[in-house]
Amino acid sequence: MGKNETIMATTIEALIDSKKYSTLRDIFVTMQPADIAILFESIDESKLPLLFRLLPKELAAETFVEMDSDEQELLIRGFSDAELKDVVDELYVDDAVDIVEEMPANVVKRILRQADPDMRKMINEILNYPEDSAGSIMTTEYVSLRPDMTTEDAVKRIRRTGVDKETIYTCYITDNNRKLLGYITLKSLILAEDNTKISEIMGTDIISVTTTDDQEEVANTLSKYDLSAVPVVDMENRLVGIVTMDDAMDVIEEETTEDMEKMAAITPTDKPYLKMSVFEIWKARIPWLMLLMISATFTGMIISSFESALAKWVALTSFIPMLMDTGGNSGSQASVTVIRALSIGELALSDIFKVVWKEFRVSILCAVALAVVNFFKIQLVDVMLLGNEGITVPVTLVVCITLALTVICAKFVGCTLPLAAKKLGFDPAVMASPFITTIVDAISLLIYFEAATMMLGL
Amino acid sequence: MGKNETIMATTIEALIDSKKYSTLRDIFVTMQPADIAILFESIDESKLPLLFRLLPKELAAETFVEMDSDEQELLIRGFSDAELKDVVDELYVDDAVDIVEEMPANVVKRILRQADPDMRKMINEILNYPEDSAGSIMTTEYVSLRPDMTTEDAVKRIRRTGVDKETIYTCYITDNNRKLLGYITLKSLILAEDNTKISEIMGTDIISVTTTDDQEEVANTLSKYDLSAVPVVDMENRLVGIVTMDDAMDVIEEETTEDMEKMAAITPTDKPYLKMSVFEIWKARIPWLMLLMISATFTGMIISSFESALAKWVALTSFIPMLMDTGGNSGSQASVTVIRALSIGELALSDIFKVVWKEFRVSILCAVALAVVNFFKIQLVDVMLLGNEGITVPVTLVVCITLALTVICAKFVGCTLPLAAKKLGFDPAVMASPFITTIVDAISLLIYFEAATMMLGL
Repeated sequence: MGKNETIMATTIEALIDSKKYSTLRDIFVTMQPADIAILFESIDESKLPLLFRLLPKELAAETFVEMDSDEQELLIRGFSDAELKDVVDELYVDDAVDIVEEMPANVVKRILRQADPDMRKMINEILNYPEDSAGSIMTTEYVSLRPDMTTEDAVKRIRRTGVDKETIYTCYITDNNRKLLGYITLKSLILAEDNTKISEIMGTDIISVTTTDDQEEVANTLSKYDLSAVPVVDMENRLVGIVTMDDAMDVIEEETTEDMEKMAAITPTDKPYLKMSVFEIWKARIPWLMLLMISATFTGMIISSFESALAKWVALTSFIPMLMDTGGNSGSQASVTVIRALSIGELALSDIFKVVWKEFRVSILCAVALAVVNFFKIQLVDVMLLGNEGITVPVTLVVCITLALTVICAKFVGCTLPLAAKKLGFDPAVMASPFITTIVDAISLLIYFEAATMMLGL
Repeated sequence: MGKNETIMATTIEALIDSKKYSTLRDIFVTMQPADIAILFESIDESKLPLLFRLLPKELAAETFVEMDSDEQELLIRGFSDAELKDVVDELYVDDAVDIVEEMPANVVKRILRQADPDMRKMINEILNYPEDSAGSIMTTEYVSLRPDMTTEDAVKRIRRTGVDKETIYTCYITDNNRKLLGYITLKSLILAEDNTKISEIMGTDIISVTTTDDQEEVANTLSKYDLSAVPVVDMENRLVGIVTMDDAMDVIEEETTEDMEKMAAITPTDKPYLKMSVFEIWKARIPWLMLLMISATFTGMIISSFESALAKWVALTSFIPMLMDTGGNSGSQASVTVIRALSIGELALSDIFKVVWKEFRVSILCAVALAVVNFFKIQLVDVMLLGNEGITVPVTLVVCITLALTVICAKFVGCTLPLAAKKLGFDPAVMASPFITTIVDAISLLIYFEAATMMLGL
């Protein structure tokens, strides 16, 4: 919440206290639903029902959709049946489904009781599709036309039925069995010559998704083909709904957040950060921290087995953090690049050899540059400036060779693990920094002690 | 590129070799421009001009827009002036600008020479806006109406001028000086009663952006208010263009990729991974690896100054990787959560105290859980199972206390640094895993040796 919202909230609370209801109403009608919802979040909960009742019907419903589920529940519990019906009647069916999905069972029952029978049927239908599927995010409120209509018939039909539809800008042409035959944009309808048959001007190069497709795929389809809506069909190619661009944007935002959370070793949740309890945040984070902490047993074992060597060449220990971090960073760079390219469709599994070959050459360049700079840095800073006499030239060489080999291995692990995860049907995003780092740590230590054994004669 | 594209490409090349041009044309007209562009990428470059000439005019232009700039340049260089004019005439002005921005100067000159004077003027105008500003991504092809028109006049005007407009679904109402007065959707125009004055039904709660606003802000505005287009005005509130949803989607994808790259210590570039040369990838990655490697000098110095202590308690060394990694992971979890919440507007700078207080409580829970599990893990696995006798109970306690304190510090650093970066006007995304890890490494080692000195009497 920004500063302005806080100032605004103070003003609003003062107006409530002095019972200036018509002033409040005047303020709200100038505002956007999304902004009213944000404002309501910073207002004392007990005043919410009063404020909400000041909004005109349509604005009230639009604001309701934008609110968090906690506040929605609070309001619904305070609504009379008539008030609940007013809000539900104004909702688009996909928004109604989103709300129903977040409510406890007794609230859901009340909502469904107040919805008109058509709406109730549509809500129940959509609720039956698996979570995150095209069916679960679609709306059933689209305009369907018949191929033998003329453009005038079509515009008349749109004028008659359009007001309740989520979009009228793309209409779908179906036969008597609801089979999808084509589509037409309102633009081509309006620009077409009078009395043209729809079948003559409709597009038949249909891009559609099926009810069970993953929501991320649906969003990518909309984005790839620059569509404003995509039709959803069942297994028999019957049109059952549409997904519009604004819902696809929400899906993309949600999926990107999930990807980033997985990449940082957090179990994704769909609650906003400030709404999550401390315990919920802990539950999303601790399993991965625990798993990664226990995996570090291996690095500990490697160091333990070289304890006597380390006791003899104590200087070697001081480079362990630098080697591990540079390895981890190199691997993360490769893995994040590959994960993102996979997720936006720039890479496919079949590109694996191209990727490995590219990363191999990049890793050689990085390895050489880092090793050379590191050699001079150690000699100039650690030996000459800081006077650390334990660091001999052979020790420096061991460090630089380990650094170079670690970077090469790290880039290899970093680019192959996300692709392997995808191949095995896991989410590549899990193979980001934390996991790569843990694996690369062990590799870098093994190389380090192997190199030290050979070159320093441990 | 997926497997299907490769198979398809082989078929296409075979058809070219056997000169089956009409078959090829038949195949292309069934395909989407985005898919043809993907297919063209895997076809031998020398065959591209031939294939491109097989496409009908409009499909050719739509496919051209979807292609990579390398291939666009190749095609333009092969075009006759007439061919170039055909493509340019079919382009929307914002797409033309995108293409012009990527081309070398001599190609730009040719394009501008072929564009008609109106188009040339619009391209030049948009090119003058700063990179990544609203002005640079807008299109000037929108429908503008006058307040005193009737709905019939408006529909007539749309039918007359709409074919070249990027969208006709939201039209903008301006006065004689191009000042923005309101907007109307085609939906309300179509659904309105006949002979209504536009001024009576237009929306006046205008959401607009100015030409110099950042493109990310523009995309967030479209997404927040679920708009299909947003008007762009100059400093005098004169309408100069619009940004449509499909362009906003591209901006969001681009900005998300940039965020992820920064979070993995990579300098963002706007080329797709497979199109970048090995040297370009190296240039984007090496500066950060170098910087972070050199910053590790501090951790090295800390270890060096405790060399004699480490020589005495060799077992302590084996826990360094685990402590550093767990600290790094804890810090990354907090930083990535905060960075993402800032970027999608869930958090503002003024929330800093809420965030710190929340992360503090989460860190206590994480610290206790990790320390307790780690205590038993060390005693059971490292001491009993692996028989490492150097690990006494006091050593175990030093490790567990360090672990707990490190996690608490890491979460604090992780949640405050992105907010501090934002406050100072930097991109919070830079304060992700790599930087947090480097800082937390030094903190964890300081705590470790301090704890060891106190408890083991080094």
